[in-house]
Amino acid sequence: MEYRFARRMGCLPPSFLGELFRVSSQPGIISFAGGLPSSGLIDAEGLSLATSQVIEEEGRMPFQYSTTDGYLPLREYIADRYRRRLGIPAEADEIQIVNGSQQCLDLVAKILLDPGDHLGMERPGYLGAIEAFSLYEPVIHAVPLNDDGPDLERFADLVHQHPLRFFYGIPNSQNPSGRTYSESSRKAVGEILEGTGTLFYEDDAFGELFFDGRPRLPVKRFLPEQGIMSGSFSKIVAPGMRTGWIFATRPVLEEFNIAKQAADLHSNFFCQVVLHRYLTTTDLDSHVKAVSRVYGERCRLMCELLDDLMPPGMTHTTPEGGMFLLCTLPPGISSMEVFSEGVKEGVAVLPGVPFYVDGGGEDTIRLNFSNAGEDAIHEGIARLARVMKRLE
Amino acid sequence: MEYRFARRMGCLPPSFLGELFRVSSQPGIISFAGGLPSSGLIDAEGLSLATSQVIEEEGRMPFQYSTTDGYLPLREYIADRYRRRLGIPAEADEIQIVNGSQQCLDLVAKILLDPGDHLGMERPGYLGAIEAFSLYEPVIHAVPLNDDGPDLERFADLVHQHPLRFFYGIPNSQNPSGRTYSESSRKAVGEILEGTGTLFYEDDAFGELFFDGRPRLPVKRFLPEQGIMSGSFSKIVAPGMRTGWIFATRPVLEEFNIAKQAADLHSNFFCQVVLHRYLTTTDLDSHVKAVSRVYGERCRLMCELLDDLMPPGMTHTTPEGGMFLLCTLPPGISSMEVFSEGVKEGVAVLPGVPFYVDGGGEDTIRLNFSNAGEDAIHEGIARLARVMKRLE
Repeated sequence: MEYRFARRMGCLPPSFLGELFRVSSQPGIISFAGGLPSSGLIDAEGLSLATSQVIEEEGRMPFQYSTTDGYLPLREYIADRYRRRLGIPAEADEIQIVNGSQQCLDLVAKILLDPGDHLGMERPGYLGAIEAFSLYEPVIHAVPLNDDGPDLERFADLVHQHPLRFFYGIPNSQNPSGRTYSESSRKAVGEILEGTGTLFYEDDAFGELFFDGRPRLPVKRFLPEQGIMSGSFSKIVAPGMRTGWIFATRPVLEEFNIAKQAADLHSNFFCQVVLHRYLTTTDLDSHVKAVSRVYGERCRLMCELLDDLMPPGMTHTTPEGGMFLLCTLPPGISSMEVFSEGVKEGVAVLPGVPFYVDGGGEDTIRLNFSNAGEDAIHEGIARLARVMKRLE
Repeated sequence: MEYRFARRMGCLPPSFLGELFRVSSQPGIISFAGGLPSSGLIDAEGLSLATSQVIEEEGRMPFQYSTTDGYLPLREYIADRYRRRLGIPAEADEIQIVNGSQQCLDLVAKILLDPGDHLGMERPGYLGAIEAFSLYEPVIHAVPLNDDGPDLERFADLVHQHPLRFFYGIPNSQNPSGRTYSESSRKAVGEILEGTGTLFYEDDAFGELFFDGRPRLPVKRFLPEQGIMSGSFSKIVAPGMRTGWIFATRPVLEEFNIAKQAADLHSNFFCQVVLHRYLTTTDLDSHVKAVSRVYGERCRLMCELLDDLMPPGMTHTTPEGGMFLLCTLPPGISSMEVFSEGVKEGVAVLPGVPFYVDGGGEDTIRLNFSNAGEDAIHEGIARLARVMKRLE
């Protein structure tokens, strides 16, 4: 039969990513295209121990239904970590648990956006956010992201021209660019938004992964009431447990809670209890430090190899943390060519196009440096260099 | 600051349930108001064993990101169980994993409903569905649910009057009424819908919990292309793992998959792997039989006590399975009075009002019989009888 789907399903940008990930997961291909943390750095032993302890001590409790806002001890842990690590006031009742920070994207859009509402984001911007937001049929405006943060003039113009419901940004080691807002850029963003009706939605998936171990203060510090933050255990503990959170004011969380309850009642409770046990019996700081150190080494190696092996005219960002960097290709070379020739050579990259919500980006590729080990990075970038030579 | 939320947030019926559940969870209160399976019947030992095996044998795999559609061996298990248990053709690629069947309600509405679209459901209807659907701003029509299924004349009229996007029903041990569609009612529903553009969304949360152990064939059997089914491990294994599924045709699942990816990338992978291990190493049929037997005993006890102790003019449904029954109060007594007087007496019931999307239901209360043991049922119904005597 002919099915008729909702109008919103036609609002998504056409995606070639499924096909691309299928191709790039073929055996023998070194993939920098994905976005996986390093499997080898997941503390399976610690999680296993926490799981056994929970099962032994908590009995059936973690297997029963629970509350929509999430396991209170876990929310207290998160609030406490904000206070200790970033020195910002945070209380457990300003935190709600979600299925990884992707669910925040969906639910924040759901409670804030009517069709035709305006929102802003960075250019390039996170693809998962573009997909989640697009299903609520907004008008998306993109502000160029410079090395130290969004283009402030364009940002201010946008905020004054349109009644943006919110601006979505990733100030720490942005996906896909790897860029981090400077301290002064954070302050300026806060000043531009203060007193407007525009919320700042700050996706902090990578804030714990700075290679220098130094935390950066969130924009929310300058905009306590207008700030919504999301965080996740996916990059610092384990993505397969799909546990993240939102940190926002109580009036925002009241609506968010209603949307979360309608969406899936509550997040996986068993994993919330296991995670809490893990977090309170392990030294998370040391673990995060170790992960960040490895990612820093892999990032530096990749940057050096790019500098050494790529043709002149090819540039790349130099991340201070996170999992990704963005390359700009020499004039006349398209990212789709690099992708298809790369696959033949045994290396997969991610063409930047889908990160540009208003078109463009054909001359960019995103490289992931967290998942492949140093040998694979050596070999993969060498393969990429051969591809670039061929295409020149 | 004054926040502005999306229009859809004003589309939800006002809810007093949060307050009500808070009140009914006070110590000393016997609650028939909630919807929990029996904690004592969750096989924590079996789940614990499966968890240890998974951690030992699968290493870090279950902790990494996975695919949006879900763990293939689990989807194969579900398809195979449909084939074996119900004799209906089902393939793994017609199954996708979600966070409990509540997430199906959200995502099916998301892919099918534009604001102002029409949908149908039973009267009374499942509250979680009313909440999930309402956020997509549809026009909801309710068809009276009789003891053997929806009022077929009203059902046919509705389908012919309005281009319903879908009709949502729970043919097996419906929530809140406990009613089950007869075989002939299922067939008639199929005949009325066949060839129309209306899908039948069949929520099968309770289909494994018939007290007589006899499976009832789904409406989808008569409407293979128009049928969407959802199922869940919440009632037969453990709700805290939030694992359910959708069973639908490939074109529907393609859109569903896009919405699921935007909503939260994928469901908790660790629990999917654990559940699959549990299901393939335990005797699920025996477990389900044991749970159904206990629920059957509790249901029969509750029905007998209601018959013996309640005033004339109070009636109740007589479920063949599931977790709930619905009482109709004698004329002149309101369910809110029964609730508030009940709390004083130490027993909590759920007023039926929120299940009636078009108003009414003030003379109904829903009672849960799965969570309280036999002693608590004896004592709780005795307390309810005192309340009723006082209100007469």
